[in-house]
Amino acid sequence: MTGLKSRELHLKKYPKGKPTTDLYEMREVDVREPGDGEILIRIVWMTVDPYMRGRMRPDVKSYIPPFQLGEPLDGGAVGQVVKSKSDKFTKGDYVVGFNGGWREYYTGAAEGYQKVDPGMAPLSAYLGVLGMPGMTAWAGVTQILKPKEGETMMVTGAAGAVGSLVCQIGKLKGCKVIGSAGSKEKCDWLKSDLGVDVVYNYNEFKGSSGALTKFLSKQAPGGIDTYFENVGGFQLEALLNNIGFGGRISLCGMISQYNNTVPEPGPNNMTNLIGRGILMKGFIVSNYMNLMTEFIGEMGPWLASGKILFRETVYEGLEAAPEAFAGLFSGDNTGKVVIRIGPDTA
Amino acid sequence: MTGLKSRELHLKKYPKGKPTTDLYEMREVDVREPGDGEILIRIVWMTVDPYMRGRMRPDVKSYIPPFQLGEPLDGGAVGQVVKSKSDKFTKGDYVVGFNGGWREYYTGAAEGYQKVDPGMAPLSAYLGVLGMPGMTAWAGVTQILKPKEGETMMVTGAAGAVGSLVCQIGKLKGCKVIGSAGSKEKCDWLKSDLGVDVVYNYNEFKGSSGALTKFLSKQAPGGIDTYFENVGGFQLEALLNNIGFGGRISLCGMISQYNNTVPEPGPNNMTNLIGRGILMKGFIVSNYMNLMTEFIGEMGPWLASGKILFRETVYEGLEAAPEAFAGLFSGDNTGKVVIRIGPDTA
Repeated sequence: MTGLKSRELHLKKYPKGKPTTDLYEMREVDVREPGDGEILIRIVWMTVDPYMRGRMRPDVKSYIPPFQLGEPLDGGAVGQVVKSKSDKFTKGDYVVGFNGGWREYYTGAAEGYQKVDPGMAPLSAYLGVLGMPGMTAWAGVTQILKPKEGETMMVTGAAGAVGSLVCQIGKLKGCKVIGSAGSKEKCDWLKSDLGVDVVYNYNEFKGSSGALTKFLSKQAPGGIDTYFENVGGFQLEALLNNIGFGGRISLCGMISQYNNTVPEPGPNNMTNLIGRGILMKGFIVSNYMNLMTEFIGEMGPWLASGKILFRETVYEGLEAAPEAFAGLFSGDNTGKVVIRIGPDTA
Repeated sequence: MTGLKSRELHLKKYPKGKPTTDLYEMREVDVREPGDGEILIRIVWMTVDPYMRGRMRPDVKSYIPPFQLGEPLDGGAVGQVVKSKSDKFTKGDYVVGFNGGWREYYTGAAEGYQKVDPGMAPLSAYLGVLGMPGMTAWAGVTQILKPKEGETMMVTGAAGAVGSLVCQIGKLKGCKVIGSAGSKEKCDWLKSDLGVDVVYNYNEFKGSSGALTKFLSKQAPGGIDTYFENVGGFQLEALLNNIGFGGRISLCGMISQYNNTVPEPGPNNMTNLIGRGILMKGFIVSNYMNLMTEFIGEMGPWLASGKILFRETVYEGLEAAPEAFAGLFSGDNTGKVVIRIGPDTA
């Protein structure tokens, strides 16, 4: 017995449409003693990410099983080791892993965790620019889009945790970057702080792929070479009208589709993929985990030298997690959304 | 002056919906003398292919310019050299190229042609199994789908010029093959002659992706690994519900969409591409022309040893070309559609 108590958020019901804040139940549980090869972690930061909406659909076959009703939610977290029964870690180490979110303490297998250096970057960065979203952005660009200097890259969800990094990597690779976001404030940030060449507020197009098609063809008369897809919907249709010959598309997310109660039709111009010889590749970050060293080797120096900037939207306390998650789908946040569960040092 | 007259089919108007036989005008023209580096060819066989429908849309940006009103149509043809002003060919040679169709004689650059051997295969085969459709099938399978032994492959338009070859290559690569066609006769041919493991008549599903989704999940409970797309529409949507993790899709055609007067929405389940890590690649055969030697090296022996069978639907005479072309979209034909323009030997 550890003697420790942990509050956890359990899923009470599945959402219909946009996730609301009443889907959850807070419970207090006894914290389990770690077994052989396990560690007990005090959670410092947890993450919410759009992909978690997919885990709230019990009927969808995906790479990761759905959340179960009456069970705790789960997700990425940064924490400090309280007890270790693994050679990999000792008490006091800071670690990051894909489990341990949505609660205050977590006991689980050490092998799912990596040590992080709180001196190199703030702890929360290991859930963002140096974590899963950073790796997602980097892998999608370098492994699928493979941009060449002088090409044009388009990014939707450009002010988000992943999109904002994609834009900056695109600029570092010598591309003209077109980014879209959902507010004037986000667009201003993309333009002035991140150096995105063309920005647009997708709300101004009111869902019209025709109007956006015309806009994009003016901004990129020679065609768009690469597209990092975070959103789907009418923006994808407009992109497919403007993709250039030999273009590449990395499908990372389609957040506009996640809350549909009835599936929405796809783009009406998929035949463009044929004649223009387009590569389209869906991916999740775990497909590229073998490239972690290469990722850190490129992203670390960029970050240290100030070539990559990042923003966070911070929520305070486990009870704020439902609101933080809901905010992902209402366009409330810029950059990475993180929730502080406890202080850096206990 | 050659003194020769050639009949040609000119495009009088663009089709609305399915191409009809009244779009054309037959004209007789004087045959031009070849200039330096050119040859004059007597056409023996011409081809009609679904991609030509795309060239009858003046507004679409594609890899190949649209046909112009009042001008002759064009396309692949096999012919015999009548006069040569090129070192590459001499009088009497049989040649195949992407130009010279829809007419009786053609004068043009020798560099677009390749010599063919009438002793190795019937001349018309150079428009089919040993020509563009054969190369298309082979390249889509070997360069994009990359099937592994024991995997499941699905092919739509399976009784067509390209699809019937894809099915057989899939079997030769050790796959379980699922093929769809539009009639009982075609399905029987696929099953009994080509050895396709599972065949279905898509008309029986009446456009319902739900019913086809269920059918496919019974036939391939472990998921479909590779998909060769010739058709689009509800079959693509059902496939995307059944594609397995790490699946590959080669987009060769979407014949169900070519005659739409209003664009039809795409599949409503494109998010499956993300979680399942799917590669989707559109292509046209000219992307892979550098692999011609490799193609002939693999297809030639298969054909010679009887491992690859092919069927042709033959139309007689240039005046039959409009009907042959229309037939591509009504499901009238099995295998490769070719039109005999003149005798093998003049």
